[in-house]
Amino acid sequence: MPEASSATRLPAVPGAARQASLRAHNLALVLQALVEGGPESRAALARRLGLTKSTVSALVEQLAAAGVVTDDVAPTPPTPAPGRPASPVALAAGGPVALGIEIAVDGLAGCVVDLAGALRATERVATDNRSGPPRERLAQAGALAARLAARATAEGGAPVGAGIAFPGIVDAAGVARRAPNLPGWAPCDLPALLARLSGLGTLVWRAGNEANLAALGEQRAGAGRGQADFVLVSGEVGIGAGLVLGGRLVTGPTGAAGELGHVCVAPDGPLCGCGARGCVEQYAGLEALQRAGGVSGRAALLSAAGRRDAAVLAALERAGRALGVACAALVNVVDVPVIVLGGLYRELASVLSAPLCEELGRRALRGQYAPVRVVASELGEDAAMRGAAGLVLDEVVRDPVAFLPELGR
Amino acid sequence: MPEASSATRLPAVPGAARQASLRAHNLALVLQALVEGGPESRAALARRLGLTKSTVSALVEQLAAAGVVTDDVAPTPPTPAPGRPASPVALAAGGPVALGIEIAVDGLAGCVVDLAGALRATERVATDNRSGPPRERLAQAGALAARLAARATAEGGAPVGAGIAFPGIVDAAGVARRAPNLPGWAPCDLPALLARLSGLGTLVWRAGNEANLAALGEQRAGAGRGQADFVLVSGEVGIGAGLVLGGRLVTGPTGAAGELGHVCVAPDGPLCGCGARGCVEQYAGLEALQRAGGVSGRAALLSAAGRRDAAVLAALERAGRALGVACAALVNVVDVPVIVLGGLYRELASVLSAPLCEELGRRALRGQYAPVRVVASELGEDAAMRGAAGLVLDEVVRDPVAFLPELGR
Repeated sequence: MPEASSATRLPAVPGAARQASLRAHNLALVLQALVEGGPESRAALARRLGLTKSTVSALVEQLAAAGVVTDDVAPTPPTPAPGRPASPVALAAGGPVALGIEIAVDGLAGCVVDLAGALRATERVATDNRSGPPRERLAQAGALAARLAARATAEGGAPVGAGIAFPGIVDAAGVARRAPNLPGWAPCDLPALLARLSGLGTLVWRAGNEANLAALGEQRAGAGRGQADFVLVSGEVGIGAGLVLGGRLVTGPTGAAGELGHVCVAPDGPLCGCGARGCVEQYAGLEALQRAGGVSGRAALLSAAGRRDAAVLAALERAGRALGVACAALVNVVDVPVIVLGGLYRELASVLSAPLCEELGRRALRGQYAPVRVVASELGEDAAMRGAAGLVLDEVVRDPVAFLPELGR
Repeated sequence: MPEASSATRLPAVPGAARQASLRAHNLALVLQALVEGGPESRAALARRLGLTKSTVSALVEQLAAAGVVTDDVAPTPPTPAPGRPASPVALAAGGPVALGIEIAVDGLAGCVVDLAGALRATERVATDNRSGPPRERLAQAGALAARLAARATAEGGAPVGAGIAFPGIVDAAGVARRAPNLPGWAPCDLPALLARLSGLGTLVWRAGNEANLAALGEQRAGAGRGQADFVLVSGEVGIGAGLVLGGRLVTGPTGAAGELGHVCVAPDGPLCGCGARGCVEQYAGLEALQRAGGVSGRAALLSAAGRRDAAVLAALERAGRALGVACAALVNVVDVPVIVLGGLYRELASVLSAPLCEELGRRALRGQYAPVRVVASELGEDAAMRGAAGLVLDEVVRDPVAFLPELGR
């Protein structure tokens, strides 16, 4: 009863605003159709959207004047019907783009993504964000954003906003509330600080949790494409999950949804940094893996796993089982059919999958009658920053007038 | 980033259907305003909905002709303005009602609920649904539905649909797919069978999981009122959870969301009926509680708890801790601020709450900066059947034309 059970609220449209908001709604419809369906003629758009051709033409003209769409594309496929060929409308190369900035524990990364979802530029900077004052790192992230914006503009794109991915609990306003693996960083008003430190104060700034945004990235362009329900489980120092249910990212009222790392897999297990015992992070987090495997550093762990070092394989077997118990709890709570392994777990998927799937198959109730697939992330280390850019691009498509004031005139 | 992160799809309205669907949409708006806000004048409705007064008057006239609303109420509060008093529109006593039918492990229950959410009638039948052929019990449930429908009609209501609450996994079509605590029942097309066995084939029939529908009931009229995010944890023989996230019930793609009973709290714990070890049901389910407490039957358990029997108190302490570990996993996954204890746990809340809250406080990450409240169900044993009726009533409000064909003319 998915549809029947949702408490839909019909929006009340204030009378005075109705005409303008109808136009804004229709502009969004046209833009969404082009973003999702690719180039299309005005006539086809009109048929698809249930609008008249003249309405669609007027909307397209407005979007073209704002530089969002263009007529300047070859009709594909060639029109089979006789008469004047229908000229397709497409997203303009010089249209809006968004920046995605990731603040990780061990580095900074950024990218530029356009409305079609294409990656226009990326840049990475290795930094140890646990040492040194957070303000200095934020200034570095701001400078990275400024360089990417300049690059995007030089290549003809129009930056309209930026999303920030952060490895901690981020609230609905984009404020980092807790950062267990980046001591001294929280609280931190990420959008306000980066808007100032980047000099890009005219952009729309948003922020979210790294695993949540990685899930959004995979949904837009990776292993979550076409999946209404899935979870991305991302492991590094911490373990986070990004939950997509019914096509929507679930962040929770305080932004703490998907804190999978602190699901208990053994009530009397080792003490965790959070104060509880037996959190899955104490079995499958990067530091627990290094301790159990007797190696130092992420690269050393991956290389030891590659040469099938016995102690590391035993640590990974134990980690896979613990992850399986925690993922089974998650599947029993939210009934997702797909688990996407991201971060470190993507690199280790070939070793982790077997014990993980074994525990999952035993413990997830839905596994007894419907499959739970475990797959590797497709976007890898790009997932979170691409999702961060996608967060802004989704907003642009939903409400183009808010981002492109010239459309409102 | 709750809003920004959701992948909203704007509905495309087919051109030809636009006029009729606009009217259907506006009928729904007016009905929803009256259901949520109580009696109101046409002028106030028009202002609130951004429609013209003449449009609202025409819509009200249609709803009145279909028996859904009436003018025949005293204006409250008395109009302060001079001139003709605005006559308020209200839901009609003779309007649509829905049946809610619960098939529990140990009985059948049913109720009649009207659009305003008022309980018009209830009836309970004690049956052991684990013994005897399911078909016979279904026939009894059908007869119960027929009696309730006749009673509703005799009292002037117009039954339009019925919801069925079932203690198992129920898919989106209302088919019970698994019923671990009612052997021999699944698969079972509950809506089709009860439509036939009740002789009420003209009603709209829906079905869902008992805990999910109990959450819907609490959301409409109990401890979940005004809560966008909460979980109802209902314990009997099995343990189920009903999750409301962002105002919507989450059932999962196969209906298995909220299978909290099979969340693992000790990987090497006792063997569960599901085949796994250490499921919370093996610590906090009714049968585990009876075994550990040395009592036989639900009533004996409650009475022993009431006289503070040492063995039963120890079993409840252990159960509370296990529930706390499982609820912490749930809170870490979906970040809910409220846990509503239903079923048996409502009766035992005074004993279970302390150990449950202690584990929860230690293990739920959000507990470190935002509270997680544990409260008792307000609707008690009525929750699931009221939610089942509510499932249908929500549909009526969303799309009155589908339920009241006279509105379509």
